[in-house]
Amino acid sequence: MSVPATMRAVQLRDYNGKPSSLTVAEVPLPRPGPGQVLVKVFASPVNPSDLMFVVGNYGFKKPLPATPGFEGSGTVVEVGSGMMARFMKGRRVACAAADAKAKGGLWAEYVVTSAQFCVPLGKHVEMEHAATMLVNPLTAWALVDAARRGGHRAAVQTAAASALGRMLVRLGQKFSLPVINVVRRQEQADLLRGMGAEHVLNSADPGFDDELRRVCHKLGATIAFEAVAGEMSGRILRAQPRNSRMLVYGGLSLRPVEIDPASLIFEGKHVAGFWLSAWLQGNNLLRQLRIANQVQKLLAGELKTEIRARLPLEKAAEGLAQYAADMTAGKVLLVP
Amino acid sequence: MSVPATMRAVQLRDYNGKPSSLTVAEVPLPRPGPGQVLVKVFASPVNPSDLMFVVGNYGFKKPLPATPGFEGSGTVVEVGSGMMARFMKGRRVACAAADAKAKGGLWAEYVVTSAQFCVPLGKHVEMEHAATMLVNPLTAWALVDAARRGGHRAAVQTAAASALGRMLVRLGQKFSLPVINVVRRQEQADLLRGMGAEHVLNSADPGFDDELRRVCHKLGATIAFEAVAGEMSGRILRAQPRNSRMLVYGGLSLRPVEIDPASLIFEGKHVAGFWLSAWLQGNNLLRQLRIANQVQKLLAGELKTEIRARLPLEKAAEGLAQYAADMTAGKVLLVP
Repeated sequence: MSVPATMRAVQLRDYNGKPSSLTVAEVPLPRPGPGQVLVKVFASPVNPSDLMFVVGNYGFKKPLPATPGFEGSGTVVEVGSGMMARFMKGRRVACAAADAKAKGGLWAEYVVTSAQFCVPLGKHVEMEHAATMLVNPLTAWALVDAARRGGHRAAVQTAAASALGRMLVRLGQKFSLPVINVVRRQEQADLLRGMGAEHVLNSADPGFDDELRRVCHKLGATIAFEAVAGEMSGRILRAQPRNSRMLVYGGLSLRPVEIDPASLIFEGKHVAGFWLSAWLQGNNLLRQLRIANQVQKLLAGELKTEIRARLPLEKAAEGLAQYAADMTAGKVLLVP
Repeated sequence: MSVPATMRAVQLRDYNGKPSSLTVAEVPLPRPGPGQVLVKVFASPVNPSDLMFVVGNYGFKKPLPATPGFEGSGTVVEVGSGMMARFMKGRRVACAAADAKAKGGLWAEYVVTSAQFCVPLGKHVEMEHAATMLVNPLTAWALVDAARRGGHRAAVQTAAASALGRMLVRLGQKFSLPVINVVRRQEQADLLRGMGAEHVLNSADPGFDDELRRVCHKLGATIAFEAVAGEMSGRILRAQPRNSRMLVYGGLSLRPVEIDPASLIFEGKHVAGFWLSAWLQGNNLLRQLRIANQVQKLLAGELKTEIRARLPLEKAAEGLAQYAADMTAGKVLLVP
C-alpha cells in the first residue's frame, strides 16, 4: 500500500482547555520504527480520558503540540522490524496510543503505535464497533473480572448511565453479578430500567443513602466501581458492608475523593484506583489476547457502544464539548 | 480480696460533646461473668479515641449512660470461670475495654473486662507506664510492623509530635526505619529535632509539598501513617512514590480524607484504615502475647508516654478539654 508524505492531524497546542487550543494541521507522515506499525485510522472516539488529557489532568502529559486520541480502529499499512509488527501487516485492528512514549494519537489520518497495542479484528467485527473496543469494553471487562476474582457477591457502581456504566450493567447480567446502579437524574434511571437493570438508585432522591445501604448489605456489594469522586465516594463507601473495596476509575465531578475516616478505620474499607494501562501491564500477552478475543465476541452485544455523532477531525473541539455536556447520549466518533 | 458493693464511675449521659454530659455517679459494682475479670483500676489515660467516643464518632456507641476509658492499668481482684480468667487472679495488668460488648470503661474505680483483654505485667513495669501501654504503644508497634513486613524502605507520618507520633519516631530509630515527620507548628518541629528526628517538615512552611515529595522519593517512603485527614491526606499521598500505601488511623481535623483521584488511578496508590481492635483480632493469642512482651520491654524507653497531669475522676471533662486543646504536651491520666 502506498502512503502519502503528509497527513492531517488534530493538534493540541495548550493544556488550557480552550476550544481554540485544538486545531488541525498538515504534518509529515510518521514512520514506524522497530516493533511499531503505521495504522490508517478509520475512526476514534472521544472518551472521558480525552477530556482529562486536553486539560493536563491525565496520567501523563505529552510534549506540545500533541495529537489526542487514545484508541481507535484502522488498517495496518506499514510495519517496522520485529515479528509482531510483521504479523500485523495489512490487518484490520483496534489499537491504542495510551502510552506517554507513543508519538501521536488517533485523532489523525494515520498513527504510529507499538504492535503490542494492536488487536487484530475477527471477520465478524465492524470497524466502527472496533473503534471503541479497547478503553470502555476492556475496562468494563477488567472491573467485572476484579469483582469475580475477588469473590464479591455483588457490585455497586456510580455514573451507571455512562457508556461504560451500561456495559457493566449488561456484563453483570451475563455473568450473574448483581450490580447496584447509582445515577443522578430520573431519565438516567429510566434508561437503565429500560435495559432490564434491576437495582437503580437516584442519588437525588430523598432516602437515597438509607436505601443504598439496605441494598448493598442485602446483596453483599463489597466492591464499588466509582467514576464520580467528591462526596459521592464517601456516600457509596459508607453504604457498603464492612471490609468493602472501592475502585476509583474516574473523577467526573472534578473534586477530590472524600472519604469518612471512620469508614477506613472502623469498618476496614479501602480505596484504590483502576487504570487500564496499569491493568494491561499486569497481564501477560497470552492472557491479553484471550481477553481481547472474548471482548470482541461481545462487541455487538453486551459490550456494544452507542454512537450519536460522527464528526470530521476539524470538529474535534466541538465533539469534545458535545460529549462533555452529556455523556449519557452515546459516543462521539471522529472519522478522518 | 474483699470488694465493696458500689463504686464511683464517670458516666457519659449524652453524645453531644458538652462537658456537663460527663458526671461521676455511685453505681453498683459490676461482677465478672465466665471468662471475665474484675480489675481495680490504678489509672486510665485520655486518648484521641476517647475524644471521638464522647461525641459518638468512634467505631461503636455504647448504650447510655456509659463509662468511657478504653485502656488502663490495675489489679485483678475477682475472676469468673475459665482458665484465662483464673490465671489473671491477683495479677497486675494492663487492660482494655475497647469492645462494644464490654459493659463498662476504665474511667471508674473498677471495671469488668474479658481476660483476653488483659496483659499481665512484668515486675519491672510501673503501673503508671502500664496505664497507657495498650493503645499508643501497640498501635505504634503495629504500624512499624506493617512497614517492615510490607518491605517499605521508609515511612511518612502526620501529627508526628503526638504521643503516638513520638513513639513512631523512636521505634523508627530503633528498627532503622527512616520516618519523615510532618508537623504543623515550629515548636513541634523543634521538639522532634530535639529527640534526634532527622526528617522533620512543617506543613505551614512555603515549599512544604515540593520538599516532602523530594524526601519521600529519596528515602522510598511508600507507606504513610495518617492521623489528620482533610486535605493533608491528599498532600501526603501526592508526595509519595508510585504504588504507595496510606494507613489512616485518625481524623484529627474532623474532616473527610480528601484524595486526588489521579493519585489513585494513575499512580496506583491506595488508602486503607488502621484500627487496633481489628489488628489484634487478626493476630492469634500467641503472637499477641509475644508482642505484648516486646512492648512491655520498651515501655520505659522507646515507647514511653509523657504524663502531664493526674486528675481524679471528677475532673474527667476538664481532662478531656485539656488534652484536646494540646495533644503535644503529654497525656492526661485519670486516677480513681
